[in-house]
Amino acid sequence: MEGVCREIRLVAHPAGVPGEDLFEVAESAIPDPGEGQLLIRNAYFSVDPYMRPRIGDARAYVAPYTLGEAITGGAVGRVVVSHHPSFAAGDWVLHMLGWREWALSDGKHAWRVDSTVAPVSTALGVLGIPGFTAHYGLNEIGKPQPGETVFVSGASGAVGSAAGQMAKIAGCRVVGCASSAEKVAWLRELGFDGVFDYREQPVRNGLAEVAPEGIDVCFDNVGGDHLEAAIGAMRNHGRIVACGSMSRYGDTEPVAPRNLFMIVTKRLRVEGFLISDHVDRFPEFVAVAEEWVRDGRLRYRETVIDGIENAPAAFLGALRGESIGKMLVKVGPAEDS
Amino acid sequence: MEGVCREIRLVAHPAGVPGEDLFEVAESAIPDPGEGQLLIRNAYFSVDPYMRPRIGDARAYVAPYTLGEAITGGAVGRVVVSHHPSFAAGDWVLHMLGWREWALSDGKHAWRVDSTVAPVSTALGVLGIPGFTAHYGLNEIGKPQPGETVFVSGASGAVGSAAGQMAKIAGCRVVGCASSAEKVAWLRELGFDGVFDYREQPVRNGLAEVAPEGIDVCFDNVGGDHLEAAIGAMRNHGRIVACGSMSRYGDTEPVAPRNLFMIVTKRLRVEGFLISDHVDRFPEFVAVAEEWVRDGRLRYRETVIDGIENAPAAFLGALRGESIGKMLVKVGPAEDS
Repeated sequence: MEGVCREIRLVAHPAGVPGEDLFEVAESAIPDPGEGQLLIRNAYFSVDPYMRPRIGDARAYVAPYTLGEAITGGAVGRVVVSHHPSFAAGDWVLHMLGWREWALSDGKHAWRVDSTVAPVSTALGVLGIPGFTAHYGLNEIGKPQPGETVFVSGASGAVGSAAGQMAKIAGCRVVGCASSAEKVAWLRELGFDGVFDYREQPVRNGLAEVAPEGIDVCFDNVGGDHLEAAIGAMRNHGRIVACGSMSRYGDTEPVAPRNLFMIVTKRLRVEGFLISDHVDRFPEFVAVAEEWVRDGRLRYRETVIDGIENAPAAFLGALRGESIGKMLVKVGPAEDS
Repeated sequence: MEGVCREIRLVAHPAGVPGEDLFEVAESAIPDPGEGQLLIRNAYFSVDPYMRPRIGDARAYVAPYTLGEAITGGAVGRVVVSHHPSFAAGDWVLHMLGWREWALSDGKHAWRVDSTVAPVSTALGVLGIPGFTAHYGLNEIGKPQPGETVFVSGASGAVGSAAGQMAKIAGCRVVGCASSAEKVAWLRELGFDGVFDYREQPVRNGLAEVAPEGIDVCFDNVGGDHLEAAIGAMRNHGRIVACGSMSRYGDTEPVAPRNLFMIVTKRLRVEGFLISDHVDRFPEFVAVAEEWVRDGRLRYRETVIDGIENAPAAFLGALRGESIGKMLVKVGPAEDS
């Protein structure tokens, strides 16, 4: 195919707070798909806080991005040419080839997206990995029971806002926290029973206000002082879903929780997971979540930045908590065009 | 019955490091058992680190001991008079009435002890609550698999030494740490595959030496720097049995683990328990553990202090890590007398 294809490459690991200079826009010819391949024109790709450690130097527990290559991650686009039996031109697909305008896939980590249920962008958010993360973590690890109180830290993100609504669907009282008045207002709209702005008061105090009788399940996206406050507020036999540690992505060292002895005295369970271990359960999730989106019980919000050249700024903004709901970069025609 | 009965009462809550002045020896007449009661002549009672928070002021998560009353806890003695249908004079019983020479029980939290298997003192150690704690925590929470590596922190205590040997029985490689050369030598005798003295080097370094490929299960009795080191050494999908927090009973604040984000990245499970929630499983444990003691696969050691008046010093010594194995106070005739 004729034309130019742009992608965002990582060109340096950060020393300190990351800046836009770590990334570059690279151009190349649009590739031709070979036997078994499909060529995808991306509409959106995702920028996520979980990418923060991966732009760093090599570490034992997470594969870092390779310098000089495009950032990988969730993207959604339309098949333009297919030489793969499972895909046809015109199909919408979710894939993991990340920050680029065009993608050449072998079909392996690619899933067809039903564009009739909701906008295809939701395949990167509420009906994609973030929604699936919320669903798996909340229900398989948190195991909320009707009438219990669930606390979601960092609740205004794509994962947190879905987890909170899913806890309501499970019959729980749901409280959460976020980092601006606008985010707090949106979470109230979604049906959260109590929300506070953790930039205005210590998490511990906010939590005591919205959940004076304690919490049974914590869905933790933040770690640090949020996790310490949650442990302090936990009722006996509580469960903490360790989903993320956004407190590590700021400019200062996160608080190291000083109350871990309560894991013993309150008989708590703290359990981490990576959703990539559970992809076999993804179709099952999509079937359930599409129903909830259709009937309005699961709502979402997107912060969309236009143009691939703005992806680094969007990513850095997401790390600073500047987005509400899912942060996306729009890099090509969506279903409306 | 004629005679004088002594007990150790808590008379003050500690302000700072606890001392013997918090306790007093009180005398009273030996009580007469009424209908449904039994009178027990104690042979041994137990002094345990878990009692440390209970001598403090009221806290939300643990019932403090009452000032002016005897310290309660595990004790073993012989029934002298029984007006209870389930017990007869001459029976050995385990009960929870604690630091006293004679005990008047209604039979509720009292269990008959088979004195033919092992010395009755083991009903307070390897065949009692400490052994049961090791067994339940290791197997129900840690779920060790053959070939896995298990790390026991504070391994020379009654719980830790049992947990390590039970992990060997489960087919694991077992490493541990303790606080003196004598303790380290004893753990090697018990079959631990690697042991280090954590007073000689940071736990992190010792653990790297004895388990260079990481650990799958941590049975944690200590918390603080031990827990941080264990999290750092954990392999993916590892389990941490949160059994105790002895690091809180020292003179300095324990380390607050700074690496809890690894609970997410390594998909760890950290789970606490209190053995008192599981007493219904105690008889099942005793049946299994008696076999292991008989065939020599489960060995134990006791540090026995003679005389009820020495109980406070024994307790304070246990907090400072001065005992090996189970710390007991002998306050009356045992089966050999």
